[in-house]
Amino acid sequence: MGLVYVFTGGGKGKTSTAIGLAVRARGHGKKVVFIQLMKGMPTGEIKPLESLGVEVYRFGTEKFVDFNNPSEEDRKLARQALEKAREKILEKPFLVILDEINVAIAAGLIPLEDVMALIESLPEETNLVLTGRYAKEELIRRADLVTEMREIKHYFKKGVSAKEGIDY
Amino acid sequence: MGLVYVFTGGGKGKTSTAIGLAVRARGHGKKVVFIQLMKGMPTGEIKPLESLGVEVYRFGTEKFVDFNNPSEEDRKLARQALEKAREKILEKPFLVILDEINVAIAAGLIPLEDVMALIESLPEETNLVLTGRYAKEELIRRADLVTEMREIKHYFKKGVSAKEGIDY
Repeated sequence: MGLVYVFTGGGKGKTSTAIGLAVRARGHGKKVVFIQLMKGMPTGEIKPLESLGVEVYRFGTEKFVDFNNPSEEDRKLARQALEKAREKILEKPFLVILDEINVAIAAGLIPLEDVMALIESLPEETNLVLTGRYAKEELIRRADLVTEMREIKHYFKKGVSAKEGIDY
Repeated sequence: MGLVYVFTGGGKGKTSTAIGLAVRARGHGKKVVFIQLMKGMPTGEIKPLESLGVEVYRFGTEKFVDFNNPSEEDRKLARQALEKAREKILEKPFLVILDEINVAIAAGLIPLEDVMALIESLPEETNLVLTGRYAKEELIRRADLVTEMREIKHYFKKGVSAKEGIDY
């Protein structure tokens, strides 16, 4: 079974790390599947990743998910993302990234058990990267590597808005 | 003056974040300069970054720097990296990344003041990313965004060795 990586915490760098790992693996010619949940808005990384041969799948609307009241559409898309992961894992890629899946679990869009089952079904050749705030304790216990991106300082807090080319 | 980003701490994800930010900026067609210190060994990310149009410069030998006794070669290379940063900043790129520079400062290869002066010379258009463990307090105070990559768990600690395509 491959290794399981979790990148969580409130600081900047979780999705960026996932992109970086995808690029590094492609540099070694390895097959990479990048599945992004809860994000439908345009972000700069998608085209370059695709041009490097990363398989990118996005499941999200252009609106932010309302944590207290996620829509049926949000749930459906998250389930589809998980289904895509199950399907792609059968092809035994070197790396599967589920970007923002921790948030999708925390928001109740998909059950933790389904993700735990996905982990147990990982082929020997396939490593799994799970990103997003609020990673569940059970997932952290199961993972081989966990980094908490701890926010020491962020300009969002000073009212500076998201910067094109850096934050999206 | 552009924004200053610091990614520090002992956990995995600092260089990966820098790669991710480079890719995202390139996705918006922005000019990116990626300067890597203290690394001369082959790593997977270099070719894909170059193929995306990132300007990559590496300053390091194939050996790890001995913190207690860095060589004259180590010092020379680190100074060259800083000189390259000064030179490239004049071209006003959107993003300059100094990967592992915090370690180079901590190891005494380059003086903190030189990096602080570089920051003060940043053009309005240029954002600066500084990565590596052991970021100095003065740098953290000056930065606009700081994330500490906190190691919750790492398989290196269990004796699992670095994985090609993920760790290099």
